[in-house]
Amino acid sequence: MLIEIGLKTSKREILIDITNLINDEIKKSKISSGISLVYTPHTTSAITINENADPDVCTDILKGLKDISPVKSSYLHGEGNSDAHIKASLFGMSQMIIIEEGRLKLGTWQGIYFCEFDGPRNRKIWLKIIKD
Amino acid sequence: MLIEIGLKTSKREILIDITNLINDEIKKSKISSGISLVYTPHTTSAITINENADPDVCTDILKGLKDISPVKSSYLHGEGNSDAHIKASLFGMSQMIIIEEGRLKLGTWQGIYFCEFDGPRNRKIWLKIIKD
Amino acid sequence: MLIEIGLKTSKREILIDITNLINDEIKKSKISSGISLVYTPHTTSAITINENADPDVCTDILKGLKDISPVKSSYLHGEGNSDAHIKASLFGMSQMIIIEEGRLKLGTWQGIYFCEFDGPRNRKIWLKIIKD
Repeated sequence: MLIEIGLKTSKREILIDITNLINDEIKKSKISSGISLVYTPHTTSAITINENADPDVCTDILKGLKDISPVKSSYLHGEGNSDAHIKASLFGMSQMIIIEEGRLKLGTWQGIYFCEFDGPRNRKIWLKIIKD
Repeated sequence: MLIEIGLKTSKREILIDITNLINDEIKKSKISSGISLVYTPHTTSAITINENADPDVCTDILKGLKDISPVKSSYLHGEGNSDAHIKASLFGMSQMIIIEEGRLKLGTWQGIYFCEFDGPRNRKIWLKIIKD
Repeated sequence: MLIEIGLKTSKREILIDITNLINDEIKKSKISSGISLVYTPHTTSAITINENADPDVCTDILKGLKDISPVKSSYLHGEGNSDAHIKASLFGMSQMIIIEEGRLKLGTWQGIYFCEFDGPRNRKIWLKIIKD
């Protein structure tokens, strides 16, 4: 089963908690056990899993990433967003999450994040569910 | 099939070779062909695949990561482990490995590692096996 | 279904677009819907998904990665390629891609890349296809 979810990002760099969005689709699918692939079809965004309790963690992650992959004048790509392409590959285009008893099986402190590195933009998430 | 494996980490940062642990569970499952999702439910740990021959590689990986995502006093998160949250997202919460002939199909020099970035702690690994 | 694809890399560091190689195998498999795991069995290479329009993006990615994980004389591993092992874990050993209507379902600007970080070498890619 393949589901497309739309999303708007409001800044150049932001992490958006999409855990409930994904869980709602899993519930609607009526699939009780399997795996879900959460995938971004864009090249300057990523999907990650990290802490969902203290929002400061997201702020720190974006701050840390900015130091790891800064904007550089020496990059060749004319759009000036090569730092964002690198961040996308560092965090990855997708995450796999277990489905158990009809919902995502995440750790106590885990949430799923859509990571925007070159917004604001209209974005899509593709969710593929594989049954056991 | 979903399996939980317990693990203790002995330092703040360590890579633990879990290849045999995972392979033992694959063998017990009697599943001969498919894919396995090796997943950490924690937010300051990761799963990676890398060289299993020279232990110096693990030492170098942790040293390199410390330079890539250093501890910073400018981070906001009160627990002081934002560097570890970033390392977790850089390496990723999970790895997918092919199952063939009832065991993991890894490259000659590949091993699977549980990566602890904010230990020592009691940790869990979730292993989900999807049959062909 | 498991497929092995051979590849030669021509430099120490290069990104090779393997999208068509993978799509050709998907078509041959006659599997119309599912997921594909594109996996490298080597420890100094990776698989990523990024922009396939402007080749400058690949040049910038390799340049950025060189700054993120530089060669260091303080590394212990005797082969002198610890920077490449780190790059491999940062980008990841595999990518999952949705299969729809008998082909890869990628974003408009996405291509799949084999990433060599310690070539030139003879390399392999493993492609595992899981049906819906």
